[in-house]
Amino acid sequence: MAAAAPPLKDELDIVIPTIRNLDFLEMWRPYFQPYHLIIVQDGDPSKTIKVPEGFDYELYNRNDINKILGPKASCISFKDSACRCFGYMVSKKKYIFTIDDDCFVANDPSGKQINALEQHIKNLLCPSTPLFFNTLYDPFREGSDFVRGYPFSLREGVPTAVSHGLWLNIPDYDAPTQLVKPRERNTKYVDAVLTIPKGTLFPMCGMNLAFDRDLIGPAMYFGLMGDGQPIGRYDDMWAGWCTKVICDHLGLGIKTGLPYIWHSKASNPFVNLRKEYKGIFWQEEIIPFFQSATLSKDSTTVQKCYIELAKQVKEKLGKIDPYFVKLADAMETWIQAWDELNPPTAN
Amino acid sequence: MAAAAPPLKDELDIVIPTIRNLDFLEMWRPYFQPYHLIIVQDGDPSKTIKVPEGFDYELYNRNDINKILGPKASCISFKDSACRCFGYMVSKKKYIFTIDDDCFVANDPSGKQINALEQHIKNLLCPSTPLFFNTLYDPFREGSDFVRGYPFSLREGVPTAVSHGLWLNIPDYDAPTQLVKPRERNTKYVDAVLTIPKGTLFPMCGMNLAFDRDLIGPAMYFGLMGDGQPIGRYDDMWAGWCTKVICDHLGLGIKTGLPYIWHSKASNPFVNLRKEYKGIFWQEEIIPFFQSATLSKDSTTVQKCYIELAKQVKEKLGKIDPYFVKLADAMETWIQAWDELNPPTAN
Repeated sequence: MAAAAPPLKDELDIVIPTIRNLDFLEMWRPYFQPYHLIIVQDGDPSKTIKVPEGFDYELYNRNDINKILGPKASCISFKDSACRCFGYMVSKKKYIFTIDDDCFVANDPSGKQINALEQHIKNLLCPSTPLFFNTLYDPFREGSDFVRGYPFSLREGVPTAVSHGLWLNIPDYDAPTQLVKPRERNTKYVDAVLTIPKGTLFPMCGMNLAFDRDLIGPAMYFGLMGDGQPIGRYDDMWAGWCTKVICDHLGLGIKTGLPYIWHSKASNPFVNLRKEYKGIFWQEEIIPFFQSATLSKDSTTVQKCYIELAKQVKEKLGKIDPYFVKLADAMETWIQAWDELNPPTAN
Repeated sequence: MAAAAPPLKDELDIVIPTIRNLDFLEMWRPYFQPYHLIIVQDGDPSKTIKVPEGFDYELYNRNDINKILGPKASCISFKDSACRCFGYMVSKKKYIFTIDDDCFVANDPSGKQINALEQHIKNLLCPSTPLFFNTLYDPFREGSDFVRGYPFSLREGVPTAVSHGLWLNIPDYDAPTQLVKPRERNTKYVDAVLTIPKGTLFPMCGMNLAFDRDLIGPAMYFGLMGDGQPIGRYDDMWAGWCTKVICDHLGLGIKTGLPYIWHSKASNPFVNLRKEYKGIFWQEEIIPFFQSATLSKDSTTVQKCYIELAKQVKEKLGKIDPYFVKLADAMETWIQAWDELNPPTAN
């Protein structure tokens, strides 16, 4: 059904967090050049980041973020790619695609370059099916459908809020797995897209991710990571847990699978272990918290859901570590900043 | 991790329901000949079913079923492939693989024949992960693992009770979809195995299915279909709904995906529509029933779970149609017959 995805040129921004010259864009030129880029420069703001010629972009460094958000800039992480969520906030487009600067164009098994953005758009433009599992995967892909026994009342599906893409070559492993399996590479091209069922959490990776900003944008907060924080590399996980709970509550869908990008290099596992180790044991309590989190009927917008979730984080996760109290406050600040930059059109 | 699956020759039976000569076994000879076959002959018991030479098999026709089960034979369907579950009951092996007689050996994208049975054994011998979604699919497959953010406490997984395989060529569609898309063929080889998350139902197809009889056998009842019943083609669906609810309750896993078989011919959509039409509207109530079904803590065995579920079926689905009262009774009869043929070793 979604054979040719409309390019959505005026409706999508590409958000890239970076600390270096964006040479990786050369390989993406045929795919990204028609789009507007929002580059969030992390680290030293006095450094100049080179962007290859011909791209249409705006670039924000830390000084810009501080200027635009004032005291509320405290909710945006520094020295961590979590800063990318600032780009979601300043975008005015309906869709966001975010990608890491060490991710390149992958090839499909026939050797053809994969237009990752086009597949994300396909994923976002056709419905999700979180209420019942379809064994032939996404029923809205060409050549596929709902199988026998799939209830007809559920075949309309729900709007898709998130498209989570995968990675060939370097898989997205945690530091312990990186240390144990330093040579493992993902060579398996799985030709599938599927909806994460309602009530099931998943580890959302921010490396190759697209979402409908109108539907779920304010939930895509990447938390407090990096400089001055006790934890790193859980920014996208945090956003994923919150987003999934809110999507389930609001009747929105999350797809995972295609498209693949080529992830070129593994980050240093020793550095990663230092960033992750608190997260590795904290998540043992965080995940049961999100698995059992419920939102009230009054939470009818993403913002309201997010504020309600922030209160629960403070109350229930605050016991683990004072960090979560700070994070809960930052979640509220994030929503305030979001609403300031994106004044509600209705109400 | 499950690189070479042990063949389990003395621990697995292949169950085949049929009304015709089993010529299809010729293509499966290299894969099936080492195993014992249980052939359940449907329809006219005076007819002789030819089995190619060299296979080790036992064959049961309706007269045999009546003789073995006596009055309890009423729980085994007649003139419907649902009769296959009689084979599960008389088997003495730990594992069952069941396949339809219009299913042939499929090729993988490299052109190599797929040893479906070997893949089912791999699936059954490594754990399932129903409590959290792994974006790189089955973490126990070679070259794969749990991704960053997957809680370590859940990486042990749970025992796998069911391996649900898929079909190339003719997809398993319902009659309305067959009528609307008569020419659709499944050509997509998706190189993945994944666990159906806890709390999520799926449409289980009996065409290419393996399970651990010790773990879940008594739940694999294919219901009352065919001759004298108002419904057909919901036998495997019924078994799948019951099995999933019980697996979730008992902490067991269900995998779907590989292996593929080649499904050679579509059944007649007009005949199918007649068999299915009541199921198509009944399932709109049946599925919410199973989605909200919970079992008590006292139900610690599959049998106890199944009896408890039968009572709920009678009470809650009996309102839809008297058929469900009869089905609930048959569910109890099935368990009695199962226990007679498989006397509990403990207690």
